[in-house]
Amino acid sequence: MRRSVIEFWFDFASTYSWLSAVRIEALAQASDCAISWRPFLLGPIFKAQGWTSSPFNLYPAKGRYMVRDISRIATARQRAFVMPDAFPANSLAAARLALAVGDDDIAAFTRRVFEAQFESGADISQRPVLEAVLQSIGLDAVAIFAASEAAAVKDALRGNTAKAQSLGIFGAPTFVTADGELFWGDDRLEQAIAWARC
Amino acid sequence: MRRSVIEFWFDFASTYSWLSAVRIEALAQASDCAISWRPFLLGPIFKAQGWTSSPFNLYPAKGRYMVRDISRIATARQRAFVMPDAFPANSLAAARLALAVGDDDIAAFTRRVFEAQFESGADISQRPVLEAVLQSIGLDAVAIFAASEAAAVKDALRGNTAKAQSLGIFGAPTFVTADGELFWGDDRLEQAIAWARC
Repeated sequence: MRRSVIEFWFDFASTYSWLSAVRIEALAQASDCAISWRPFLLGPIFKAQGWTSSPFNLYPAKGRYMVRDISRIATARQRAFVMPDAFPANSLAAARLALAVGDDDIAAFTRRVFEAQFESGADISQRPVLEAVLQSIGLDAVAIFAASEAAAVKDALRGNTAKAQSLGIFGAPTFVTADGELFWGDDRLEQAIAWARC
Repeated sequence: MRRSVIEFWFDFASTYSWLSAVRIEALAQASDCAISWRPFLLGPIFKAQGWTSSPFNLYPAKGRYMVRDISRIATARQRAFVMPDAFPANSLAAARLALAVGDDDIAAFTRRVFEAQFESGADISQRPVLEAVLQSIGLDAVAIFAASEAAAVKDALRGNTAKAQSLGIFGAPTFVTADGELFWGDDRLEQAIAWARC
């Protein structure tokens, strides 16, 4: 049986992407799906539709609700939730690193960056935070940081963001199945997996 | 045992409110919850945050996604889905009528208005459409229309919208439990009922 691939499009600053990043592997494995990790930047997509920041900052009632919604879900899933002081974090460095670590390490790297941010409240725009994550999974932080600044990595991230926009992605997380269906939000993850019929 | 009340805040023009309106009674009954039906207008709330229309019109990618998301959910629930030509409909008359029919009939009236709109594609801003709904549940359409234009009804609807805004409601449907928790979206209905511990 050929394993069906689900693309997992996420921005490192996104709270709902965190909820998915820490559970998608177990869910995918149980369904024999393969996950393709696709970091991108929401910033340019928000900007293109006239938003200067996260909708959770632009619309305070929505922002307050998001924190409460995430808190309830985290409690139900027995996960700690700490809202970082700066939100949304600048996720550029994390996204480039995710592309630089390569396919073997992107899942572990991504999960740990999200955990540092939303379970410990760390500011993931800060290099020492990202270095600690790289080291925690046995990678050479200095070498990976250097690699993440290569033109090819910068281009790959710009390419991901442009691809997200061309797919019609307007928020994160978004799951895209092989037949091109979009599923937006952590609350659509199970539906995406069922649709993919892995 | 005292039955717990869940407030169901909805706008008649809202697709996701339709999804909830047609299933909330069965879910509530199974959990022994009581539903308090709260029609309000999203328009003034959107306007207060700078939106001149539905976000599904302002942000086309989001609008296209909504139609596809609703289609998939409707199919899974074995319900027809027809997107009306005019969206969002002007829901003022329907909302006033919902308040005018009274507590005994608001559930049936609301469900049928939503069904006419999103299962048959009817324009619910049109009086004949609303008259047909009133007649289908055995009410005197002419008398109810007259009653719906009373100052008390107009004030009640304005009061509902102001209350929604003061509760922090920014979209529909929203479910509010007795302890003041907000749950936004049809996909949070089960969670709201579980929270209410009816």
